[in-house]
Amino acid sequence: MRRVYLDHSATTPVDRRVLEAMLPFLTEKFGNASSVHFFGQEARAAVDRARRDVAALIGARAGEIVFLSGGTEANNLAVRGIAELAAPSGRHIIASAIEHPSTRGVCEALEKRGWEITWLPVYEEGLVRVEDVRAALRPHTVLITVMLANNEIGTIQPVAEIGALVREERERGRRHLFLHTDAVQALGRMPVDVEVLGCDLLSMSAHKLNGPKGVGALYVRRGVHLAPQNIGGHQERQRRAGTEAVPLIVGFGAAAALARQELNERMQHLARLRDRFEAGLTARIEEVVFNGSRASRLPHLSNISFRYIEGEGLLINLDMQGVAVSTGSACSSGSLEASPVIRALGRSDELARGSIRFSFGKETTDDEIDYVLEILPRTVENLRRLSPLYLEATGRRAGERDGTVLAR
Amino acid sequence: MRRVYLDHSATTPVDRRVLEAMLPFLTEKFGNASSVHFFGQEARAAVDRARRDVAALIGARAGEIVFLSGGTEANNLAVRGIAELAAPSGRHIIASAIEHPSTRGVCEALEKRGWEITWLPVYEEGLVRVEDVRAALRPHTVLITVMLANNEIGTIQPVAEIGALVREERERGRRHLFLHTDAVQALGRMPVDVEVLGCDLLSMSAHKLNGPKGVGALYVRRGVHLAPQNIGGHQERQRRAGTEAVPLIVGFGAAAALARQELNERMQHLARLRDRFEAGLTARIEEVVFNGSRASRLPHLSNISFRYIEGEGLLINLDMQGVAVSTGSACSSGSLEASPVIRALGRSDELARGSIRFSFGKETTDDEIDYVLEILPRTVENLRRLSPLYLEATGRRAGERDGTVLAR
Repeated sequence: MRRVYLDHSATTPVDRRVLEAMLPFLTEKFGNASSVHFFGQEARAAVDRARRDVAALIGARAGEIVFLSGGTEANNLAVRGIAELAAPSGRHIIASAIEHPSTRGVCEALEKRGWEITWLPVYEEGLVRVEDVRAALRPHTVLITVMLANNEIGTIQPVAEIGALVREERERGRRHLFLHTDAVQALGRMPVDVEVLGCDLLSMSAHKLNGPKGVGALYVRRGVHLAPQNIGGHQERQRRAGTEAVPLIVGFGAAAALARQELNERMQHLARLRDRFEAGLTARIEEVVFNGSRASRLPHLSNISFRYIEGEGLLINLDMQGVAVSTGSACSSGSLEASPVIRALGRSDELARGSIRFSFGKETTDDEIDYVLEILPRTVENLRRLSPLYLEATGRRAGERDGTVLAR
Repeated sequence: MRRVYLDHSATTPVDRRVLEAMLPFLTEKFGNASSVHFFGQEARAAVDRARRDVAALIGARAGEIVFLSGGTEANNLAVRGIAELAAPSGRHIIASAIEHPSTRGVCEALEKRGWEITWLPVYEEGLVRVEDVRAALRPHTVLITVMLANNEIGTIQPVAEIGALVREERERGRRHLFLHTDAVQALGRMPVDVEVLGCDLLSMSAHKLNGPKGVGALYVRRGVHLAPQNIGGHQERQRRAGTEAVPLIVGFGAAAALARQELNERMQHLARLRDRFEAGLTARIEEVVFNGSRASRLPHLSNISFRYIEGEGLLINLDMQGVAVSTGSACSSGSLEASPVIRALGRSDELARGSIRFSFGKETTDDEIDYVLEILPRTVENLRRLSPLYLEATGRRAGERDGTVLAR
């Protein structure tokens, strides 16, 4: 069966060049980067090089990169790491209502322990407003955490403007106010520069930009202190204990270097495919709703609600035809609730449950888009013909065929 | 230059068969194991298979295995995960004085937050005594953490006897007393069975048994609850959030399956090489001290103090001749202090600083042992001739050559 993978927000294939960079470290160059001898030094040099490559992708210094096991660990370390150290100086966090479950989860856990969390609304466009951040600020706010781009709808948040606000506050003499942004979805799909953003902490994951699974990083601005979470070892300058996963770190470095070189080309390719897909879909299927701002968003993702049907049913029907997409995020799959991100846009439960995320990759071809545009309309039509809601809306009976339905 | 790697306690090369098992998941089978579609299910099936293989290696059920990023995370999750949930029911932990820095580090952090820790002595043999565990037990003890085999001296602790003690306590109606053992060094080098050990938690790391770096696991006995540390995702049955590192998990599973099949063969090979090495070394070099029990220990490791010289100097000299060994553990390298493990044996600072860990692997050959036995005596001799302590002990002047020294 033909397989078309349109779920690049969940994970991406490892680039062949990334794998080639990793292979020596999965074979002959197997040293522990903390060992003093030749094998260790060889591994250490590779980790250092990767650290520079990851830093370069976001305009940071190598010493500001802490390698971790992935984006979830990065979000956990950022929020809990700041909160644990800051507890005496503040007990308030500002977070967007559409943060990734890992950020949201840590905030909610802190809430149970007495922290106050202000959840910023994102309105119909799925965008945080800077004036809301300003209004939420309190004397004891220690952390603002707003993701750079959302994982379900791809909207790009005004992090640089929030960063400017934080700088203003600092210029007024305020300390202990930090800005964290989860750039896991953004990285490799838009320019990311920590100086432009003005953030203190930035989360990354390699497998979202054609690197390997099992490795991520947290950018920690020089001078910012965090309570480490994985402890009992000197690695990563005491900020994350545990044997360095050298092949993965090397892979992350290679993926970062490639993403930096090819960013413009990739963005153009993704936006062109996405626009073709959306135009084709709109021409062929009625009663679809695009979720989130279509102006401020990543180039690789379309989140669409198909009225009258369940996203889960559409996903399964597409999967049976070889097309891989998702409802919500992979991180919340298995949950039967409607996506909280789509709900945060003010959508009805019905529309939220009918949403599907199509996310494209640098390997996605025009031919694959054509294939999906060919099967998607009749799949949607078939599901709608079985939908009581649809039948009610169109005044027909289950199973009734009517070629005019799509043309209405 | 010829390179001989005798630092298998720090890390081991990935077995070629393990890499072959991993490669499809680093290339075409790249799905996120939490995705509902075909690519996700393919990854999920591989993770499930690996979970069964890892469980089989330790006599556990698949559902009792929680995949993590490595041994350090496993020790952190075990100790902190029990402590955070148990805080109301107890504030006392019993730990051996020679736990891995990651276990020790978490215990020390808890100590600062008001927990009491009893550090069990290990005596000259480097072995915990069960009667000391019994004597240390208090009504509010919630955790006993004693590693299965030590990472620096390889001594095998009486964990099964401690497990029997814990069972006795349970039969007397005691609850909330758990036994954790760090089996990172032991796994693949001795039989490990959670039923024989009677432990509730057991830490593992793939890269110590010819699997990849960046993946480990914690065995959590059915019914034992832990406070998760990495949160905000449903993965690993809510016990560890974050995208599953599918290729690494597959590699860990393959390494576990091979270790299970080849355990006896590997143990015999390692013990034979180790015994040849120790016999040859004893015949050729005077004034050496073996650290830790030579009866109850792993088959792949010799920890030896060379009187009058610094381990660090010997390590560097051997490295210049292509032989990779270590002082202390890789996890504590960079530290200038004498190994706390060797100190715990009651050794002087001088002997502790003169200790070297030679650790063999399944790939180590007789020829490599011969090579090391050839260069080690003259390297030690050269260093001793520069050592004021040695000159004082033998009544000679720096640089003086005397062929009889070695024959004394």
